[in-house]
Amino acid sequence: MRGVYVAGVGMTNVGRHTNTSLRDLGGIAALKAIEEAGNERPEALVIGNMLSSLIEQENLASLIGDHIGLRGVSGFKVEGACGSGGVAIMTGYSLIASGLFNKVLVVGVEKLLERPPSDVIRGLAYAADADYELVHGVTFSGLNALVMRYYMGKHGIDYEEIAEWSVLMHRNGSRNPFAQLRNEITLEDVVRSPLIADPIRLYDSCPLSDGAAAVYLVSEKLRRVNDTPVTIVGIGNALDSTDLTSRPELDDLLASRVSADKALRMAKVRVEDIDVAEIHDAYTITAALSIESIGFAERGRAPRMWCEGRFSPGDKPTVNPSGGLKARGHPVGATGVYQLAEVVMQLRGDFPGVKVPAEIGLTQNIGGVGSNATTVVLKR
Amino acid sequence: MRGVYVAGVGMTNVGRHTNTSLRDLGGIAALKAIEEAGNERPEALVIGNMLSSLIEQENLASLIGDHIGLRGVSGFKVEGACGSGGVAIMTGYSLIASGLFNKVLVVGVEKLLERPPSDVIRGLAYAADADYELVHGVTFSGLNALVMRYYMGKHGIDYEEIAEWSVLMHRNGSRNPFAQLRNEITLEDVVRSPLIADPIRLYDSCPLSDGAAAVYLVSEKLRRVNDTPVTIVGIGNALDSTDLTSRPELDDLLASRVSADKALRMAKVRVEDIDVAEIHDAYTITAALSIESIGFAERGRAPRMWCEGRFSPGDKPTVNPSGGLKARGHPVGATGVYQLAEVVMQLRGDFPGVKVPAEIGLTQNIGGVGSNATTVVLKR
Repeated sequence: MRGVYVAGVGMTNVGRHTNTSLRDLGGIAALKAIEEAGNERPEALVIGNMLSSLIEQENLASLIGDHIGLRGVSGFKVEGACGSGGVAIMTGYSLIASGLFNKVLVVGVEKLLERPPSDVIRGLAYAADADYELVHGVTFSGLNALVMRYYMGKHGIDYEEIAEWSVLMHRNGSRNPFAQLRNEITLEDVVRSPLIADPIRLYDSCPLSDGAAAVYLVSEKLRRVNDTPVTIVGIGNALDSTDLTSRPELDDLLASRVSADKALRMAKVRVEDIDVAEIHDAYTITAALSIESIGFAERGRAPRMWCEGRFSPGDKPTVNPSGGLKARGHPVGATGVYQLAEVVMQLRGDFPGVKVPAEIGLTQNIGGVGSNATTVVLKR
Repeated sequence: MRGVYVAGVGMTNVGRHTNTSLRDLGGIAALKAIEEAGNERPEALVIGNMLSSLIEQENLASLIGDHIGLRGVSGFKVEGACGSGGVAIMTGYSLIASGLFNKVLVVGVEKLLERPPSDVIRGLAYAADADYELVHGVTFSGLNALVMRYYMGKHGIDYEEIAEWSVLMHRNGSRNPFAQLRNEITLEDVVRSPLIADPIRLYDSCPLSDGAAAVYLVSEKLRRVNDTPVTIVGIGNALDSTDLTSRPELDDLLASRVSADKALRMAKVRVEDIDVAEIHDAYTITAALSIESIGFAERGRAPRMWCEGRFSPGDKPTVNPSGGLKARGHPVGATGVYQLAEVVMQLRGDFPGVKVPAEIGLTQNIGGVGSNATTVVLKR
């Protein structure tokens, strides 16, 4: 298989971009990545997005491609709910590895805050099972709450242990100029925040976000501005059921586990060798499940480990130095592309927030309540 | 690049499937294709779909994958408006050509008729430009009407000449057991049908459709039931602007032309060598533009050619022996996959409608008013 390299990255800050159109938002991130890649014209454009239907716009590759001068190139949108960015990267990777193209731009973009929150909450639930779950009136937070309650009971974990994750994420996010939530918080802030879906509180949840990120993939090591090319050495993606009820164990994220296993085996990298990771903490419970599925912790052990200071800056692996979905924010279909761009910057040494000295990095992006996942392993 | 072969196809009839869920509809087509491919378990699942957001469901690869027993495999949805099926095939092709997988199932599925027509018409317009076009109240038919009026004026073509396409399509469709509209019609029926958006009449337009089709792609010639493997010898995809106003000429479908050129060059096939083609006639005017962009006719010549009997069964190329979008129907994100399945069956000799003796076939699937297009060239 042909090698795939990251020649450039770009991102907007995460937050509210009400006065920036979808095409502008995607275009800003895209043009930054193209500039880093020496202003080479991409041959194909892959868009990661979940919910542009809420603002009555599909066909985003044409929309954003034309906006940045790419008529005549190939392009389309890829969707896997909150994991749309990850599957867009998987697609971009295969377009280059196949030999079809040598230069592929992957843009993750999401613009949610133009719509009222009730519409967005409803849209996010399209990631769940409309026929078997949503029909009962459950929300996406409600489904994650079921998993969190199950996890706490099975492993004897206190709420406060899980909630410590938010404190760490806000501390990391406070140093990331692209992050949506840059205020440090205390455990008491989390515990006193409003209940969303028992036991999930407001501060256990990522915010609703607008944002766009881009990565420029190439088939050979192009000389970049800072002369430190990054290689995608492993990539894996897997599906689980959409609904929760048919899973044998609610705390075993099959898609997350299988995708990490595929990526690590392809990369010939042991999980112990990972220096830095950006994982999918849409809720604090999701952080625990993702960390455990990747193999950074045994099942039921992650919260106690982060309470003991593990995964913090200085530890190996450092997890979510960006602040994660919790503090950097979660512009749904863009999140997986943010993660990749952030880890690329860590490996290059130019991430503008918490810096992690790193040679090997990993990203994991999850869609639905673990119903799909993409894991990428990168090397400097 | 590794070769890519079609080991199996499947489809549901096109029409109204109100009592069949989205997962069932996709599953029926998928299981037929898997059966044709010797019941091999796919390693990846690519879904083509545009408008499942209308029934509040995204994350379709997980939904349909789990339904047919594919937990743990890779998968995601690909979207390019009405060209979603084509870009799903492009993606499936690259997943195999890259060496990432050896067995990839591509399923196009669309379920529109559960919603009231007004919602569906609104949803289809997400293919156009929400900021620059839809804001003016124009519909998707309205945009195509502008193109048709421009074409008629520029090339001195009468309405009746274009409308003859519908008569041919209904004649072909009447023999296709999977087609939605199986009644033969006369030119007078077309001319007397209600105006939708002047000059487009009801019988110039494809119907609203539910349906699903699947193709099973493999990396090497698997022995199939009927022992006539089909090879994808060329594939091309291209983007144009989403909006019409910024194009230099409304009757030049850049994406269609470039994608066909890419596919034919990759296949090392001359357009004169094509025996059978399935092209994207969402409106009668779209048939003319697609036929001309591929190179089957000079600009402004297609309608007179079909009035003279060209493109009919017996001619080379025979175009849309299925009845096309006009009569087979247009289950939006599934259409490109129907086209591929139909041409594969023509090359194998087992298409159950109008049969075309053929060694080389072509499909062209278009999204938006030509804002993206995918062309595939196949050989027996």
